[in-house]
Amino acid sequence: MKIQLWSVGKPNESFVKEGIELFTKRISNYYAVEWKVIPMPKNAGKLEANILKIKEGEIILSSLLKDDYLILLDERGKSFTSEALSNFIEQRAGESLKNVIFLIGGAFGVSEFVIQRANFKWSLSNLVFPHQLVRLILAEQIYRACSISRNEQYHHV
Amino acid sequence: MKIQLWSVGKPNESFVKEGIELFTKRISNYYAVEWKVIPMPKNAGKLEANILKIKEGEIILSSLLKDDYLILLDERGKSFTSEALSNFIEQRAGESLKNVIFLIGGAFGVSEFVIQRANFKWSLSNLVFPHQLVRLILAEQIYRACSISRNEQYHHV
Repeated sequence: MKIQLWSVGKPNESFVKEGIELFTKRISNYYAVEWKVIPMPKNAGKLEANILKIKEGEIILSSLLKDDYLILLDERGKSFTSEALSNFIEQRAGESLKNVIFLIGGAFGVSEFVIQRANFKWSLSNLVFPHQLVRLILAEQIYRACSISRNEQYHHV
Repeated sequence: MKIQLWSVGKPNESFVKEGIELFTKRISNYYAVEWKVIPMPKNAGKLEANILKIKEGEIILSSLLKDDYLILLDERGKSFTSEALSNFIEQRAGESLKNVIFLIGGAFGVSEFVIQRANFKWSLSNLVFPHQLVRLILAEQIYRACSISRNEQYHHV
């Protein structure tokens, strides 16, 4: 199973770059892992939020393969403890999935079409984080989840 | 009102340093703000968790002034949305407090004495984060809270 981390928007800013690289490298000891930053549509700044979401959604949907398991980070989703996330990833790994994709939407969220396509919606937190920080938190939590599955030390210190 | 951010342990690691500095500087546009890293007791690695917690707790308690308002980050605490955190900080600012301290405990948590001294316990998340990342998240959320209070743009993009 390959873990793909998709986010919409700009490349990583410098204040999260090192951390994202650190935890992504650690994830790669457990699963093949890949980031994909989906560029914003041209003239994004001039588009209305709803139009922008639909355009971003079209790019996202056209990038997905039929059997990709899509986990959307969405505030209306289910929340996890770190242990529950670990169990969830382990279950997916037991289902012979080829790609599990964690998707961080754009600044205004994602379109209804993407929400409908998602196999699972995960609410990361009651708090609102900037997208750049969500990338770092996501990488760290997936690494933590892997480490919990193997009952390693990291989770306990 | 001064906001103090206390944490137990090592200095900031490089993967969070830039982000912590960035958001702390931004907080300083709203409140006087200061970080304090409480060093771990000598031979910390050789001490039992309970002894270590008590020793760390003694250092924390002896560093507090009588009227300091202590917010302990604790998984058994109350959780906030970013808006609720913003209201909470605004309320504290309305109470003529001199110091509001957010305390991130040590690797094994804090002693009962510190828990009893705390004026408020805040559960940051259902997820477990490494202490270094908690520092970054805390700085960002306090900046966000300030920005929400002033109804500025940051929270909405």
